[in-house]
Amino acid sequence: MNAKSRSRLIELRRDLHRRPEIGWREFYTTGRIVEELEDIGPDELYVGREIHREERIRPPTDDQLARARERALETGVDEDVLERVADGYTGALAVLERGEGPTVLVRVDIDGLPQSESEDPDHVPAAEGFRSEYGERMHACGHDAHAAIGVGVLEAVAESDFEGTLKVLFQPAEELGAGAASVVGSGHLEDVDSLLAVHVGLDVETGVVIPGIESFLAINGFEATFEGAPAHAGNSPHEGAHAIQALSTAVGNLHAIPRHGDGATRINVGVVEGGTATNIVPESASLQGEVRGATTELRNYVEDHAARVLRSAAEAHDCEVDVSFRDGAPSAECDDTLVDAVSAAAAGRDATVTPDEGDALGGSEDATRLMRAVQRSGGDATYVGFGASNPTGHHTATFDVDEAVIPLAVDTLADMVRALSA
Amino acid sequence: MNAKSRSRLIELRRDLHRRPEIGWREFYTTGRIVEELEDIGPDELYVGREIHREERIRPPTDDQLARARERALETGVDEDVLERVADGYTGALAVLERGEGPTVLVRVDIDGLPQSESEDPDHVPAAEGFRSEYGERMHACGHDAHAAIGVGVLEAVAESDFEGTLKVLFQPAEELGAGAASVVGSGHLEDVDSLLAVHVGLDVETGVVIPGIESFLAINGFEATFEGAPAHAGNSPHEGAHAIQALSTAVGNLHAIPRHGDGATRINVGVVEGGTATNIVPESASLQGEVRGATTELRNYVEDHAARVLRSAAEAHDCEVDVSFRDGAPSAECDDTLVDAVSAAAAGRDATVTPDEGDALGGSEDATRLMRAVQRSGGDATYVGFGASNPTGHHTATFDVDEAVIPLAVDTLADMVRALSA
Amino acid sequence: MNAKSRSRLIELRRDLHRRPEIGWREFYTTGRIVEELEDIGPDELYVGREIHREERIRPPTDDQLARARERALETGVDEDVLERVADGYTGALAVLERGEGPTVLVRVDIDGLPQSESEDPDHVPAAEGFRSEYGERMHACGHDAHAAIGVGVLEAVAESDFEGTLKVLFQPAEELGAGAASVVGSGHLEDVDSLLAVHVGLDVETGVVIPGIESFLAINGFEATFEGAPAHAGNSPHEGAHAIQALSTAVGNLHAIPRHGDGATRINVGVVEGGTATNIVPESASLQGEVRGATTELRNYVEDHAARVLRSAAEAHDCEVDVSFRDGAPSAECDDTLVDAVSAAAAGRDATVTPDEGDALGGSEDATRLMRAVQRSGGDATYVGFGASNPTGHHTATFDVDEAVIPLAVDTLADMVRALSA
Amino acid sequence: MNAKSRSRLIELRRDLHRRPEIGWREFYTTGRIVEELEDIGPDELYVGREIHREERIRPPTDDQLARARERALETGVDEDVLERVADGYTGALAVLERGEGPTVLVRVDIDGLPQSESEDPDHVPAAEGFRSEYGERMHACGHDAHAAIGVGVLEAVAESDFEGTLKVLFQPAEELGAGAASVVGSGHLEDVDSLLAVHVGLDVETGVVIPGIESFLAINGFEATFEGAPAHAGNSPHEGAHAIQALSTAVGNLHAIPRHGDGATRINVGVVEGGTATNIVPESASLQGEVRGATTELRNYVEDHAARVLRSAAEAHDCEVDVSFRDGAPSAECDDTLVDAVSAAAAGRDATVTPDEGDALGGSEDATRLMRAVQRSGGDATYVGFGASNPTGHHTATFDVDEAVIPLAVDTLADMVRALSA
Repeated sequence: MNAKSRSRLIELRRDLHRRPEIGWREFYTTGRIVEELEDIGPDELYVGREIHREERIRPPTDDQLARARERALETGVDEDVLERVADGYTGALAVLERGEGPTVLVRVDIDGLPQSESEDPDHVPAAEGFRSEYGERMHACGHDAHAAIGVGVLEAVAESDFEGTLKVLFQPAEELGAGAASVVGSGHLEDVDSLLAVHVGLDVETGVVIPGIESFLAINGFEATFEGAPAHAGNSPHEGAHAIQALSTAVGNLHAIPRHGDGATRINVGVVEGGTATNIVPESASLQGEVRGATTELRNYVEDHAARVLRSAAEAHDCEVDVSFRDGAPSAECDDTLVDAVSAAAAGRDATVTPDEGDALGGSEDATRLMRAVQRSGGDATYVGFGASNPTGHHTATFDVDEAVIPLAVDTLADMVRALSA
Repeated sequence: MNAKSRSRLIELRRDLHRRPEIGWREFYTTGRIVEELEDIGPDELYVGREIHREERIRPPTDDQLARARERALETGVDEDVLERVADGYTGALAVLERGEGPTVLVRVDIDGLPQSESEDPDHVPAAEGFRSEYGERMHACGHDAHAAIGVGVLEAVAESDFEGTLKVLFQPAEELGAGAASVVGSGHLEDVDSLLAVHVGLDVETGVVIPGIESFLAINGFEATFEGAPAHAGNSPHEGAHAIQALSTAVGNLHAIPRHGDGATRINVGVVEGGTATNIVPESASLQGEVRGATTELRNYVEDHAARVLRSAAEAHDCEVDVSFRDGAPSAECDDTLVDAVSAAAAGRDATVTPDEGDALGGSEDATRLMRAVQRSGGDATYVGFGASNPTGHHTATFDVDEAVIPLAVDTLADMVRALSA
Repeated sequence: MNAKSRSRLIELRRDLHRRPEIGWREFYTTGRIVEELEDIGPDELYVGREIHREERIRPPTDDQLARARERALETGVDEDVLERVADGYTGALAVLERGEGPTVLVRVDIDGLPQSESEDPDHVPAAEGFRSEYGERMHACGHDAHAAIGVGVLEAVAESDFEGTLKVLFQPAEELGAGAASVVGSGHLEDVDSLLAVHVGLDVETGVVIPGIESFLAINGFEATFEGAPAHAGNSPHEGAHAIQALSTAVGNLHAIPRHGDGATRINVGVVEGGTATNIVPESASLQGEVRGATTELRNYVEDHAARVLRSAAEAHDCEVDVSFRDGAPSAECDDTLVDAVSAAAAGRDATVTPDEGDALGGSEDATRLMRAVQRSGGDATYVGFGASNPTGHHTATFDVDEAVIPLAVDTLADMVRALSA
Repeated sequence: MNAKSRSRLIELRRDLHRRPEIGWREFYTTGRIVEELEDIGPDELYVGREIHREERIRPPTDDQLARARERALETGVDEDVLERVADGYTGALAVLERGEGPTVLVRVDIDGLPQSESEDPDHVPAAEGFRSEYGERMHACGHDAHAAIGVGVLEAVAESDFEGTLKVLFQPAEELGAGAASVVGSGHLEDVDSLLAVHVGLDVETGVVIPGIESFLAINGFEATFEGAPAHAGNSPHEGAHAIQALSTAVGNLHAIPRHGDGATRINVGVVEGGTATNIVPESASLQGEVRGATTELRNYVEDHAARVLRSAAEAHDCEVDVSFRDGAPSAECDDTLVDAVSAAAAGRDATVTPDEGDALGGSEDATRLMRAVQRSGGDATYVGFGASNPTGHHTATFDVDEAVIPLAVDTLADMVRALSA
C-alpha cells in the first residue's frame, strides 16, 4: 500500500475512533464510510435498510434514535445517508464486479461500546488527540480499524487484477449480537463462495495472522425484571417484597453456577438497575446479562441453570420475575480448504501465520451466523485474525491497536481475495 | 370550619396530589401554597431561600432543577414565586402577629415521593380524577393533606381571638431527610415557645388524635459506589473486578445485619444501578440506602455494621468502594406539658385521644431536628398525629387519606394554638 | 438463711457447674438434686419418667443416652436414681404438704448448654476451680444456680409456717424448648393455684427483683436437610447438585428476612453440617435454627418466610429440601394479682423491685407452656427475675452469676410462697 | 490371562470393593494385597512405613487410626501386616529383579472415598452382592480394580521373559492428594527408568487405551475456620459475631470466583460444619474445599481469589478466619518416547488406542508428583488410561467398572513392561 492510502486509512480510523456509536445507531460511522466508498466507486452500494431484513434483534428505542440522529446532524453527516439509516438500520455493503469468478465476501463490523475511554497520557488516543469525544462511548474492540480495513480492501482489490465479485460488508451492531442476524435474511449471502470475517487485536502481536479462528463461544443474552411490593422501609418493611434483595440473590447464584467439565462456560450480569428511593422497599429491579459456552450445548447448560436461579431468587423474596433470553450467536467452524488458502496467501506477506490459539480467545462473535449461512448455501467460510499488539484487553478503557495492522491487514486480505480467484 | 373553607382545602389537597414534587423541587407546590397564603394575608411571608440557611443536605443537581422548573412553568406557576425558589430552596413560612403572647410554630411538610401511583379504580384518587399526573411521582405519605391543613390553620387562627404569634412552616424535602436541617440554621426558630409538628394517616382511623408521638426512629442515609475493573466478559473475565457482584454481596449481607436485642433497627437498600453492557465485566455500580434505630445508638450500631459490610464486599471482589453516610434525623422526645395541653384541646373536639402507640409506627421524621432545636432554645415541642383511615400503608401505590381529616385537624390544631395563648 | 445453708447451696451450685449436662441427659444433675431433696425429706418425690407424659420434643438418641449414662456412672451417681432417669426422662418434682391452703409451684430448670467454658483467669469459675470439666458443655445460663435455689426454697418453706401445698419442679431440657411440654401432660399442674417460674441474671444487677417478666419471645425451632447430587468435583462438577451451595444461599437469605414493623423478630441458624470430601460435590447438607417473635403472629411471620427461603434456596441449586418446624414455646402473660403479691413480698426483703424491663430481655422460655397450662386450669402464673450482676451475656463463654443471688432468691421466694398462703 | 487368574483378580477386586478404606487407613486393603503378593513371591516386598518418608500430608488423627484398626482386626487382617501399617503409613511396593535391564515402575492406587454406595438393584455391586459393607465409604473411583490390576501385572511379568527390574507400587491416600508426596522422598524412585501410572474408567468404553493422559488439573486443598463471638440468639444477637453467616457468605462468593479466560478452573467447598445449638449465635464454623486449574498458574489464580474471599467474608461478619492451603498435586506432562512405546504395545493387544481426550477428563492426580520426580531423575513417565464403560461418573453412588478391564489392563501393561526391556 502506498503512503497516501495508508495515511488516509489511519486518518479514517482515528476519525471514527473519536465518534464511537452504539449498534443500530452508527449514523456518523455509516455516513463516513459511505463517503469513502463513493470515492472508490464500487459497482453497487447498499446502505442501511437495503442490507437487512425487517425483523431485528434488540432494535433501538425511538428516544435512542432521536438522540443519536441529533448528534449525528451536529457532526455534519451527509443528510441523504442519514435519511437512509435514520430508522436505525445501519451499515453498508459495497460490491465490485470484475467478470467471471468466485464471489468473495469480506466482513468487518463497525460499532462501538457503551463505556468511557481512558484519559491516561500513556493511552495513545489520548496522547495523540483522537480519544472519544462522547462520554460513555468508546471503540474498545477495534471496530474503528475494521472499518478502515474494509475500505482499504475494497480499494486494493479494485486496483488489482482480481476476477470475480467482491463484496465488502460493513456490519452494524455486532456488540449487541444483533447485526449479523438481519443480514442473513437479506439475500446478500446466497451467492457467496468464500466468506472472510476479520478481527484485529486478540492479545496477539502485530505481524501475526491467524487464518482460521474456531474458538468463539456460543452466546445468548438475557434480561430479568423482578417485581415485588413497595412498603415504607421504616414502619412496615414486612409488608414489602424486596426486588433488590431478589436481584442480589440472583446475581450471586448466577455467577456461582457450576463450571462444566466438558469445556468453557461463561456468565456475566453486566447491567443492573432498581428502586426509586431509600425509604421505600424497592418494588422493581432488573438485570441484563449473557451466557456463553464452548458449544451450543454448554451455553444451553448455563442458560437452563440461569433460568432456574432467577426464578428461585424471586421466590426467596416473594417477588415475581419476568425472564427473557434472546438469540445470540452460535459457535461455528472454519472450512479447512479456505483456511489453507488464506494461510498460503498470508505466508507470502511476511506474516507469522499461526493456527488458532484456542481457548485463550474465548470471545463470541455474531459473524458465526454469517459463516453458518454461507456454509448452508454451499460456500466456505473462515474467521481471520490479525495481531495488533493491543496494550490492554478488549473492552477495557485503555484498549488500543497498533495502527500498523491496518496496511498489513489490507494487503494480506487483498492477497487472499485475489488468491481465491486464481 | 364552614363548608366553603372545607371545600377549598380539599380542592387544594387534590390539586397538590395531582402534581407531586420531589424535595427541593417543590416549585408548583410552593407557588400554589403561597397563592393561598396571600389570600389570607399573613403579617409576614417568607418564601424559598428566606427560610433556609445556605448549606443543605442532598441538594438537587442542575439538571434536576432545570427539568423541574420547565415542568412548573408549563403548569402556570406565578413567575415571581418561581424565581424565588428556582435555585432549589423551596417551601414557605407564614407569620401572624396578634399582640402579646407566646410564639407557636405549626409545621407541615409538602414534598412527594419518587414512585408511581396506582390506577386501580378502587383507589380514590384514580376513581375521582386527581391521581398523579406525573410518572414515578406520588403523594404517598399525605403531605398534600399536610399543606392544606397548614393553610387551614393559618386561616382559622387568623379569624380567632388568638393572642401571640403564630408561625406556619411549609417545610420542603422531608422525605430526603433534608428540609428541616437548613431551617434550623435560618433564625426562624429561636423565639418559638411551642412547636407542633403534624402528621396524618399512621394506619390509625379518622377521629383519633395522638398528642405526642415519640416512636420515631433515628435515621441516616448512605451511598456506596463500587469501582472494579472492566474486562471482556467472554475472553478475559479473570481480568475484571466485578462491581455488580460486589454490590450484590453487600446487599445480601446488609439486610442480614443481626437484629439488636435492645430495640428496633432497620436497613433498606432502596436504589441500585451499575454496569453498561452485558459483554463487559461491570466496572462500576452504586447503591443508596438507609439505616434506622429506635435510638441514635441503635442506628449507629447498624451504620457501623453497614460500613464494614460494604468494605468487605468490595474486598471480596477486588473492588474499591466509596461509602458516605449523610446526616438524617435523630430521635426526639415530646414535652409532657405541651402534650398535656394539646391533649386537653383535642379532647374538647370530640376526638379520641390516645397515647403514642409506640413501636408500631416505626417511621422517621426530620421534624425531630426542629423539635430538638426548639428545645435547645428553651421551648417545648410535640409531634401530633391525626388518624386518617389510610387504606394501605404509607409509601405504597394505593396510599390515600380520608379527607375528613383535613377539617378535623385544622379545627383541632387551631384549638390547640389558642389554648397555648390562654 | 443461715451461713450453713448458704454454703451448702453454693457448694451445690458449683458442683453442678462442674458437670453441665444437655437436656434429657441431666443424669448427674438429677441424681445430685435428688440426694439433696431426700435430706430435706419432702412428702412426695417424683423422679424422671414420673413427671413427664410419654411423648417428648427432641428426645435424645440411643447413642447420646449411652454416652451420658457412662459418664454419669463414672461420677458416682446413685444407681437407683440413674435407673429411674436412664431412658432420658430427667428432672424431679418435690412436694410439701402442709395442710389446707393453696397449691404453689416453684419451677426451676436444670440443663446446660453445648458450648465451651472460658479458661480466662478473670472468669470466676476458672479462678475458683469449678469450671466445667466437660468439653463443649457449660452452664452458661444460670440453671446451676436455679437448681440450688429450688433446693433452698423447699428447705426454707419446710421450716416455715406455710399452710398449703408447695411443689418445686426441677425441669429438664429447657434449652431444647422441650422439657416443659411433657410436664404439661403429666397431671402435676392441674391443681396448681399459683406458678412462680424463676430466672437469674438477665443483665440486671444483684438485688433487683422483677416480679413479672412478660417480654419472652415466642419461639419455634427448625431443621432443614438439602439433598443434591454428588459428582466428581474436578471432572464433572456440572453433574452435581451442590447441597452446600444451597445451604449457604439459605443461610444468607434467612438472616435477611425483613424486620417486622410491629415488633421484635429473631432468626438464627445455629448449626450446620454437610459434605464428605473436598473432591466430591456435596450431596447432603443440613442446618438447624430457630425463629422468634414478640408475639405468636410475629414468630409465624418469620417462620413462613423461612420456609419459603429454604425451598427456593434448594431450587436455586437443583436440590431437594426437607424442612421441619417443631413446637417451641408461645409467649405468655403474667397475672397482675400474682405479680402484685410477689412484688409486695419482695419489697419486704430490701430488694429493688422493678417492673419488666421489656424488650431488652428478648429471650424465650418454655416456662410459658407451664404458665399457659396453669392459667387454662384457672390458676395464676408469673415469671420472676432475680438480677445477678452477670459479667457477660447469657450463652457466652464467660457468663457467670453473682452467687449472692442464691440466698437472696431463696429467701424472697420463700416469702412469696408464704405470702400466697396467708 | 488364564481363566483362573482372571477369576482370582475379579474376586480380589470384589473383596476390596466390599471394604473401602479412606487414605492412610487402608489396613484391610494393604493386608489383602500383601497376602496376594506373597503368593506370587516378589524378590522384595516393602510394606507401610518402608515406602514412605516420615513427613506426610493430611495424616490421620489418633482416633481415626484407632477406629480403623479395630474394624480391620474384626475382618481378620494378618496381625503382622497390621502392625507394620498400624501407625497409618499404608500401601506396599513389590519388586521383581530379573537381571540386567531397565527399571520399570507400575503405579496403582488403593484408597476409597467417604461416601455411601447405591443400593439400586441396577447397580452391579448391589445386585451381585459385593456392595460396600461400610456406611459412608465406597470405592467410587475404581481403585479396587487398580489394586487387582497391580497384582495381576506382577504375576504376569513374573511369568514372562522380562529382563530388568519391575516395581509395582500400591499407593495409598491418592484421594487425599497425599500418598504420592511421601513416596517421593522414600528412595524408591531414583532408579526408575520408566513410570507407568494407571487409571481405569474415565467415562471411556472398555477396550479403549489412552497411552498418555496429560489433562490432569493442578490441585490444592484448603481449610478455613471462622471464629466469631457467641451470644444468646434471642436477647442479644447484636453481641454475637455469626461464624455461620461468615461461612455462608464465603461459600457463595468462592463458587462465584470469575472463570478464567485461559483455561479450566475449579473450586469446590466439599465439607462444612459449625455451631453447637440453635439458640446460640455460632462462635465457630469451618469449611474444607479445593481449587484446581489446567495449569499451576490457573490453580494459583483461584487460590489467590479464594484467600481474599475467605478473609472478606470473615470481616463482613466481624469474625476472624484462619485459612490454610495444603500442597495438592501439580500438572505433569507425559514423555513422548514412552507414550509411543506403550502405544505400540497396546496396539498389539487389539485395543483401540486413542490420544488424550483432553479437557473432558478434568480430574487431578497425585501421580503427577511421581511423574515429576522420575523425570527429575532422568527417567520417563506416562499416565495410561483404560476405558471401563463406567455407567455413571467417578465419585457418584452408582459408579462401577466393567470388570473386563482387569484382564485387559493386566495383559496390556505386561506387554508394555516387556516392550520396555526389549
